[in-house]
Amino acid sequence: MVKIYTPIPPYRNVTRRGSDIKEGEVALSSGEVLTPSRVGALAALGLSKVKVRRRVLVSVIPTGEEIVPPGEKLEGGRIYDINSYTLGMLVKECGGEVKVWGIVGDRREELEKALQEALKESDVVVFSGGSSVGERDLLEEVFGSVGEILFHGVQIKPGKPLLAAKSGDKILLGIPGYPASALTSSYLFLKPLILKMGGYPLQEERSVMARMSRRVTSNLGRHQFLTVRLERDEGGYLAHPVFKESGTITSLSRADGYVEIPENVDLVERGEEVQVKLF
Amino acid sequence: MVKIYTPIPPYRNVTRRGSDIKEGEVALSSGEVLTPSRVGALAALGLSKVKVRRRVLVSVIPTGEEIVPPGEKLEGGRIYDINSYTLGMLVKECGGEVKVWGIVGDRREELEKALQEALKESDVVVFSGGSSVGERDLLEEVFGSVGEILFHGVQIKPGKPLLAAKSGDKILLGIPGYPASALTSSYLFLKPLILKMGGYPLQEERSVMARMSRRVTSNLGRHQFLTVRLERDEGGYLAHPVFKESGTITSLSRADGYVEIPENVDLVERGEEVQVKLF
Repeated sequence: MVKIYTPIPPYRNVTRRGSDIKEGEVALSSGEVLTPSRVGALAALGLSKVKVRRRVLVSVIPTGEEIVPPGEKLEGGRIYDINSYTLGMLVKECGGEVKVWGIVGDRREELEKALQEALKESDVVVFSGGSSVGERDLLEEVFGSVGEILFHGVQIKPGKPLLAAKSGDKILLGIPGYPASALTSSYLFLKPLILKMGGYPLQEERSVMARMSRRVTSNLGRHQFLTVRLERDEGGYLAHPVFKESGTITSLSRADGYVEIPENVDLVERGEEVQVKLF
Repeated sequence: MVKIYTPIPPYRNVTRRGSDIKEGEVALSSGEVLTPSRVGALAALGLSKVKVRRRVLVSVIPTGEEIVPPGEKLEGGRIYDINSYTLGMLVKECGGEVKVWGIVGDRREELEKALQEALKESDVVVFSGGSSVGERDLLEEVFGSVGEILFHGVQIKPGKPLLAAKSGDKILLGIPGYPASALTSSYLFLKPLILKMGGYPLQEERSVMARMSRRVTSNLGRHQFLTVRLERDEGGYLAHPVFKESGTITSLSRADGYVEIPENVDLVERGEEVQVKLF
């Protein structure tokens, strides 16, 4: 004897043809980023290969006679190459491919030769260093010889002496040498550039609200990016400023994110609520 | 004649020794994730190599006689292997390393052999498929033969028939075969597992607030994860439900994130404000 306890409506546990994706329907559009679920949609269609955009190729060229690769001995008056590593990793995090070139001196011929080599195989060429006035002017001349200067200098702190140029459809950047300046200006300019060229949508920055742990002053007329470390307490988050000087790397390595202080604000009070954009 | 326009205080433009990192100070602690700025801190110290944790090794084993790799011809009653691709990509996004094994049938000996092989070289072994009652019980027996069952079945939708076991310090998961169920339960259980085993801090999920575009009902007693597509309008974001059935892949490939409907809620009204966790 068979006992039936529940009525079974017709087509229970039957999936109708086309209930997921209909014939002729667009499953994925050009420009959509391949996430796990979208790769799944391709597999569901039986596709083992699809055409995708290639990665944005970024050359990073460290400049300055005083720069030494990590691992080597540091003589007096010299410093280790930091920016090749920070910028290189940032490029990879943005989905780009990075080639770090050998350290180049501050002479015009050396800079020109390096730029021409790098342009052959890159979409973006980034020179880091050369922040002193004479060096900046030299790099501007070198960029000007192969393209058009877009801007030189931005009213932000840190990261003011930023140089940008265009050569055909390629972008050239001169990023300040100080590590905190280099990385801050790269988060602000290089990151959106690579995302845009790579066809990625610009993401909303992840951010949290926090209270400032102490009073902070800023220069009127200059948009400041203040790096902060977050601490969780009973009231939510406390933001501790960690910025020391543009030359220090702990200004960033201890930071969870940054607070923007607009150019028309010269004071943020202790306890004031601020938005912290997370690194 | 030299004219001086601005007074120069002592030590202007001089960085004092130890002003960044003092001798004996901790620059980076064990367990900190290497971000661009932290890699910069290592370079600043002249370190060209550091010891890091190894990646979590995850085996994904697709099961079921009906599964065919994408690219091959699909005969009647068969479906393409989707979960190996969605889960594989999710594992990589979490910083893990993935090995996808060949498709395994639903017989006990095959499952046991595959598990034993995979356990030799993995920290986590994930079987996908085998969601029917008989198959699930079989996988539970197979897991039980090498370890201890942690749980079988969770009150969520989709993704209910999830199986977890422990063998020494290794974790075994049986993930439901339906693509939307597989990926949802992997976001909820596999992702935090890999992050935790890999030594990553559990991140706050990125989320946005949105208004539901239509009335949605849910089963009382079951925590529902409703996938939604976001649309920006003048009032902020609208969340459009895209979930169709657990078997459909567009339930996820069209989704920007998901809304959680707790087990004691059976109705979300049109226009109600909801938190959308982004994929």
